[in-house]
Amino acid sequence: MNSATHGSFLESAQATLGERGLTRDAELMEPWLTDWRGRYHGNAIALASPANTAEVAALVALCARHRVPIVPQGGNSGMSGGATPDASGTALLLSLRRMDSFRRWDEDAREVVCEAGVILQTLHDAAAQRALRFPLTLGGRGSATIGGLISTNAGGTQVLRHGTMRAQVLGLEAVLPDGSVLDTLAALKKDNRGFDLKQLLIGSEGTLGIVTAATLSLEPQITGRQVVFAGVESVQQAWCLLLLARDRMGAALEGFEIIPRLALESVLHHEPASRDPLSDRHHWYVLIELVTHDPDTAPLAEQTTALLETALGKGLVEDATIAANETQAEALWALRDGISSAERAHGPAVQHDISVPPARMPDFIDQASAALEDRFEGTRAVAFGHLGDGNVHFHLRAPTGATGGEWEEREGKAISAAVHDLVTQWGGSISAEHGIGQMKRDELARLADPARLTILRGVKQALDPLGIMNPGKLVPLASSPQAA
Amino acid sequence: MNSATHGSFLESAQATLGERGLTRDAELMEPWLTDWRGRYHGNAIALASPANTAEVAALVALCARHRVPIVPQGGNSGMSGGATPDASGTALLLSLRRMDSFRRWDEDAREVVCEAGVILQTLHDAAAQRALRFPLTLGGRGSATIGGLISTNAGGTQVLRHGTMRAQVLGLEAVLPDGSVLDTLAALKKDNRGFDLKQLLIGSEGTLGIVTAATLSLEPQITGRQVVFAGVESVQQAWCLLLLARDRMGAALEGFEIIPRLALESVLHHEPASRDPLSDRHHWYVLIELVTHDPDTAPLAEQTTALLETALGKGLVEDATIAANETQAEALWALRDGISSAERAHGPAVQHDISVPPARMPDFIDQASAALEDRFEGTRAVAFGHLGDGNVHFHLRAPTGATGGEWEEREGKAISAAVHDLVTQWGGSISAEHGIGQMKRDELARLADPARLTILRGVKQALDPLGIMNPGKLVPLASSPQAA
Repeated sequence: MNSATHGSFLESAQATLGERGLTRDAELMEPWLTDWRGRYHGNAIALASPANTAEVAALVALCARHRVPIVPQGGNSGMSGGATPDASGTALLLSLRRMDSFRRWDEDAREVVCEAGVILQTLHDAAAQRALRFPLTLGGRGSATIGGLISTNAGGTQVLRHGTMRAQVLGLEAVLPDGSVLDTLAALKKDNRGFDLKQLLIGSEGTLGIVTAATLSLEPQITGRQVVFAGVESVQQAWCLLLLARDRMGAALEGFEIIPRLALESVLHHEPASRDPLSDRHHWYVLIELVTHDPDTAPLAEQTTALLETALGKGLVEDATIAANETQAEALWALRDGISSAERAHGPAVQHDISVPPARMPDFIDQASAALEDRFEGTRAVAFGHLGDGNVHFHLRAPTGATGGEWEEREGKAISAAVHDLVTQWGGSISAEHGIGQMKRDELARLADPARLTILRGVKQALDPLGIMNPGKLVPLASSPQAA
Repeated sequence: MNSATHGSFLESAQATLGERGLTRDAELMEPWLTDWRGRYHGNAIALASPANTAEVAALVALCARHRVPIVPQGGNSGMSGGATPDASGTALLLSLRRMDSFRRWDEDAREVVCEAGVILQTLHDAAAQRALRFPLTLGGRGSATIGGLISTNAGGTQVLRHGTMRAQVLGLEAVLPDGSVLDTLAALKKDNRGFDLKQLLIGSEGTLGIVTAATLSLEPQITGRQVVFAGVESVQQAWCLLLLARDRMGAALEGFEIIPRLALESVLHHEPASRDPLSDRHHWYVLIELVTHDPDTAPLAEQTTALLETALGKGLVEDATIAANETQAEALWALRDGISSAERAHGPAVQHDISVPPARMPDFIDQASAALEDRFEGTRAVAFGHLGDGNVHFHLRAPTGATGGEWEEREGKAISAAVHDLVTQWGGSISAEHGIGQMKRDELARLADPARLTILRGVKQALDPLGIMNPGKLVPLASSPQAA
C-alpha cells in the first residue's frame, strides 16, 4: 500500500468508526503493541476500537478492499503473542474492548449473550448477581476478554469438570474476512446443517474471522466446596487418587492439580505469608476441589472425609488436610496459583504448555524429566498443573548460576525443541491451552502431522484468500521456510 | 471416465482390496443402493468393502487419480439419503461395515477406540460387559455404525444429558480426499493447535473425508433408573416441568420427551399390547428418565416422588405414574418409541426434524401448528420428541381420506417449505439431528445465512478440490441452480 491509498484507508476508517473509534496516537497505542509478558513487540498503522458489530463488519470490508492486515485483540493477556502485530507497521490493531455489553440474560435457560470485550471477571460477577456461575476461570480473569478466550479456546483450572471454552459456547457472532457477519447466537442444542461453524472459529486465533459476541452457557451457583491438599509419593499415586476421586465423587470433582515439592518450595520462599499445609515433606502434592449445589453442604464434607480415609487406607495418600473454611481454601489455592510468579522469581527457566493423553501423563513426567535433565546438564524439570486434563506446565529451570537472558538465548530453542519432540512422540500437543500464536507457529510446522497442516492451510486459504486476518499467527504457510 | 480408464480403475481397486473387498455383483450391491426408507435409489460402478484404514487410504488415492466419486456408507440407516449414490452409476459405493473391530479398551480412562463399522448395539453390549456404558442411543441402534453416527452427528433420546455424537468423540481417524490419513485417536483433553479438526469432520456427512475409527468416551454403568409418564395441559407446562426437573435432579435427568394426545392414540391403536398409563385423557404427555450411579437406588426413587409431588402441587402436572419395575419402564418407553411406526400406519404425513432455541419450543409448537393447519386445510400437526433439546419431529398429517403418494407428491414440497420458513424465522435449524444429505440440500441453499453457505462451500472446495467426496450431499454448490 502506498501512502496515498494508506491515507485514503485511514480517512475511510475514521469516517466509519468516528472520533473515539480510531487513533494513531503513539502513546495511546503503545501499551497494546507489546504482549503483557514483554516478549513480542510490534507496530500498527492505527488502533481501531469499534463500538458494535456493524462497525467491525464495515471496517473489515474496508481492510479487505485496501488489503490491510488486521490483528484482533482482546485483553492482550495471551501467552503466545497471538494478539501482537509484526514489526512492519502495516497492520491495523483492532481492539474489541469497547464492545463490552451483555446483550441478553436468560436465567431460566442459563444463558447469556455477551459481547467480545466483556472481561471474564465482569462476567463472573454479573452471573453471581443472578445466582448463576460461569465456571471457566484462570489467572488472567481481570483482563482476559470473552472474545480472546474464545479465539484461543482458553482452559484453566475447572476444565476437568466443565471443559475448555469450546464447551461453554452455545453460539457466536463473528465477522468473516470479507466483512460478512456469521450469526449463530440463537443457541440450538441440536443443529445438523453440516459441520459446526462455531467450533471452526473457536481456537482459530483470529485467523478466520473476528468473534464479536457469543452465547455462553451458565451453571447454577455452587453452595459450597471442599478443598483438599494432599502429599503423595509420585504422580502415579496422584493419578490413582484422581481415578478414585472421579469414581467416588462424580460431578462434584471440579479441579485436580499437581504440584512438585520443588515448586511448593519456590512458593513458600517467594510468598512470605504462605506456609506448608503439611508437617512432613512429600515428593508431590495434589490440590483437589470438590463442589456441591445442595443447600445442605454436610454430605459433601462427609464424602470428602470418606474419600481421604479410603485413599489413606489404600496408601495413595501420605498425608492430607481439608480446608476448614473459605480463608483456608483460598490459602491452599494461593499455593497453586502462586507457582508461575514464584518460579519466575526463582530464576530463569524455559516454559512449556503441553498435553498428552491423560493416563500417560504420570509416565511422561517421569521419563521426560529424566531425559531432559540428563541431556541439559544442571537443569531441573518442574511439571505442575492440570493432571486431570493431561495438561501440565512443564518448566526446565536453568542450572544454578546461569544468567537469565543469556542462558535462554543460548539453550531455550534446543530445550523447547526437545520437549516438543518428546510430547509429539507421546501422542501429545505442543500447545494444550495457550494456543500457537507467533510463538509456536514454526514448531507446529516442524512437528504437525502433514494431514493436519493441509487442513489448517486449506481452510485458512478458503476463508481468508487475501490473507488479511491475523497474518503470521497459528497457520504455518506452505511457502514459509519452516514448513519446507 | 471412458471405459478404458474405467476398467483400469476397477482392476487397480480389485488389486488393492482383494477378492472380498470389491464386488460388481448386482444382487450383492442391490440392498445398499436404496436407502432403508426406500426414498432414494442410486447406482454404483462397484461396492468396495475395505478391511482396514490402509486399504481405505489406498482406495481413496486411487479414486482421486481416476476422479471416481466416492459415497461412503455405514449401516445405510440414515434419514436424509446421505449414503445413497446418484443414478449415474459413476460413483464407487464404499462400505465401512467390514471394519468392525474394537482396537483398544481403556476401562480406567473410560475410552474405547473402535472402527467405523462397529454397530451401535454391539458397542452398547461390549461396554456393558466392562461395567461401562456408551450413553448415545437411538432407534436404528441395531444397524447404525459408529462411522455413520459420527458423520451425521447423530442424536437420540439421551442428548439432554450427554450431548450429541460430537460430545462423545475424543479423537478420530479419517482418510482425507487425497488419500492421506488424519490420526487424532490419541485422545487429548486439551489441544490448542488451532481449530478442532475432529469437529470439522463430525457431521460433515462424508463430504470432507471418511471416518475410519474413533476414540469414544464411556460412562459408568447406571445402577438404576426411574421412568415417569405424566399428563400435562400444554407444552408450556411441560417446559416448566423440565426446568423444575433440571433444577431438582441435576445430572440425574437423562431424557425428557413430549408426546401429544394424537400421537399417543396412534400408538394405542397401532400396538394392541399397549395401554394408556393414565386413567384420564390429557392434551400432552411427558416421558422423563432419571438415572443413578449410586449402588443404593432408594434416594433416586425418593427424589423422583418428591419431584412429582412438587409438580402436582404447582399444577404443572395433571396426573403421573412412575414405572414400578423395568418391565413397566420399557412399556412406557415403547409408547414413545412406537410413535414413528404408528404414525406411518395411521396414514400419510409430511415429516420434519427441526430445532429452535429450547425455551422457544412451546410457543413454536403452538403457533406453527395453528399456522400450518390453517394454511393446509384438513391437516393435523403432530409434534413429538426431545423437548429438552429444543428438537421435535414435526409431522403434518394429511387430511382424512387423502391418498398417500398422491397427496405427498402434490402438497409435500409446499408443506416442508412452509415448515422450514417458520423454523428459520424462529432462529432454528431445518435439520436438528437427521442431517442434510440429498434430501435437504436445496432447502439449505434456499434458507441458510449466506455466511454459512460461504464457509460450507469454501471448506468443501479447500479440502476436496476434485469434488469426489460424496458429491451432491450436504453442500449446495455455488453453481447449482438452487443456490442462485
